[in-house]
Amino acid sequence: MIVHNVSKRHNIGTLVRSAAAFGVTEVCLVGARQFNTFGSHGSADYVNYRHFPTLQECCRYLKEDRGCRIMGVEIAEDAQPIQVHPFSGPTAFMLGNEGSGLSAPQVQLCDAFVYIPQYGAGTASLNVTVAASIVLQHFAAWAGYAERPRSGAKYDVGDRPMRTGPRRMVPLTEDERAAERERRQERRAAVNEHDILQGSNDEGPLLDDLLDAADDI
Amino acid sequence: MIVHNVSKRHNIGTLVRSAAAFGVTEVCLVGARQFNTFGSHGSADYVNYRHFPTLQECCRYLKEDRGCRIMGVEIAEDAQPIQVHPFSGPTAFMLGNEGSGLSAPQVQLCDAFVYIPQYGAGTASLNVTVAASIVLQHFAAWAGYAERPRSGAKYDVGDRPMRTGPRRMVPLTEDERAAERERRQERRAAVNEHDILQGSNDEGPLLDDLLDAADDI
Repeated sequence: MIVHNVSKRHNIGTLVRSAAAFGVTEVCLVGARQFNTFGSHGSADYVNYRHFPTLQECCRYLKEDRGCRIMGVEIAEDAQPIQVHPFSGPTAFMLGNEGSGLSAPQVQLCDAFVYIPQYGAGTASLNVTVAASIVLQHFAAWAGYAERPRSGAKYDVGDRPMRTGPRRMVPLTEDERAAERERRQERRAAVNEHDILQGSNDEGPLLDDLLDAADDI
Repeated sequence: MIVHNVSKRHNIGTLVRSAAAFGVTEVCLVGARQFNTFGSHGSADYVNYRHFPTLQECCRYLKEDRGCRIMGVEIAEDAQPIQVHPFSGPTAFMLGNEGSGLSAPQVQLCDAFVYIPQYGAGTASLNVTVAASIVLQHFAAWAGYAERPRSGAKYDVGDRPMRTGPRRMVPLTEDERAAERERRQERRAAVNEHDILQGSNDEGPLLDDLLDAADDI
C-alpha cells in the first residue's frame, strides 16, 4: 500500500488497522516520515513501514525489487470495477489524498486503476480509508490468503513485535540518517523561519523536530 | 441499515457517506433520536432516516412492513463470509457498536450473520464503519444496482433534497411528539437532576434539550 498525502489522523490510523486485517505486506510512506496512527487500536505495531523521499523511488522499489504492479485506486478513464477482481499477481495499491484523489504524478506512475462503483446520489466519493479497505478486502479474498484463527467473535492478535524505531516513525538506516541531516542543513539555509512555520500543521511536530528527536534516541 | 449504539461522531458520518454511496434505502436509528453526521461531507441530507425507540419495533417494521431479512454483521458461529454473497433479497444489516460488536438482544433479532474474514495478525476486528462499508459494497454489487453517472473522477451528486426536520435529527410525527413529551415528563419526575447530568456526553446536547429545541421550531 502506498500512502502519500493522506493527512487526517483518524484516516491513517484506520487505514493501518485495515492493512493489518487484510494482510498487507508493507505500508510505503512517501514524503513526510512522520505519521500518526490514532485509531489503529494498536495494530500499527504489526505493520511493516518503508519510507521513500519521492514517489519515483517508491515505485521503482516496488516494481523492480518486489515485482509489484502499481494499481491506483481512482475513478480513472480505464479503471476497472473492484468486483471483477482485475488483479494478476503482487500488487501495490496507490491511494490518493482526502480532497483531490490521485495527483497527476501519481497517475503517471500507475500501471492500472481500480475503482469502486457507487449507486446512490448523495456523495461524489468515498472516504479514503473506506475505499482502501474495500480494495484490500477484495484483493485478499482474490489472493486466497489463509484466514487468521479467531476466538469467539474476535480474531487472534499475534505477539506484539519488537519496535525497531521510535513509535509512529519509519526507522532510518545510518546512510539515510546522514543524508537527512545534509538535506535539513540545505533546507535550513534556503528557507527562512517564517516559511518553516507556515509548513506546520496540527497533526504533530515539524518533520525537522521529529528528526532531531530521533537523533537523540 | 440498523444503527444502534454507534457512538463516535466520525464513525456515524462516514457510515452515512457509505450508505449514500451504496444505495441504502433507509438508515434505521434505534434509541437516541439525536445523531451527529460529522464526516458525512453533506451526504447526510440524502439519506432517509427512520427512528425506533426499541430494537424490537425496528425489526418488526423491517420484517413485516418491508419484507427484509435481518442480517447481523458479526463473526457469529454460523456467519458466512462476505465474499460468498450470502444474500437472498431485501436485507437490513444490523451493526454492532465500536467496542463490543452486536449485543445479545441484537443477535437474537438477526435471521442470519455475515462476517469479513481477516488475514493478518495485527488486529482483532475492523473499524465498524469499514466493516459496514465492505458489506454494503458487496451487497450493492450482488443486487446489481445501476451505477450512478459520473463526471471525471467524481460521481454526480443529486439535487439536495428538502429538509423535513431539524438537521441531524429524525423528524417526529405529531403522535410521536406527543408521546415523547409524555415520556419526558415521566422521566423528569422519576430521575433527579444529577442523574440526567451523568447521562450527558460530548457528542452533543442531551436528548431532552434537543427535543425541547425541536418543539420550538
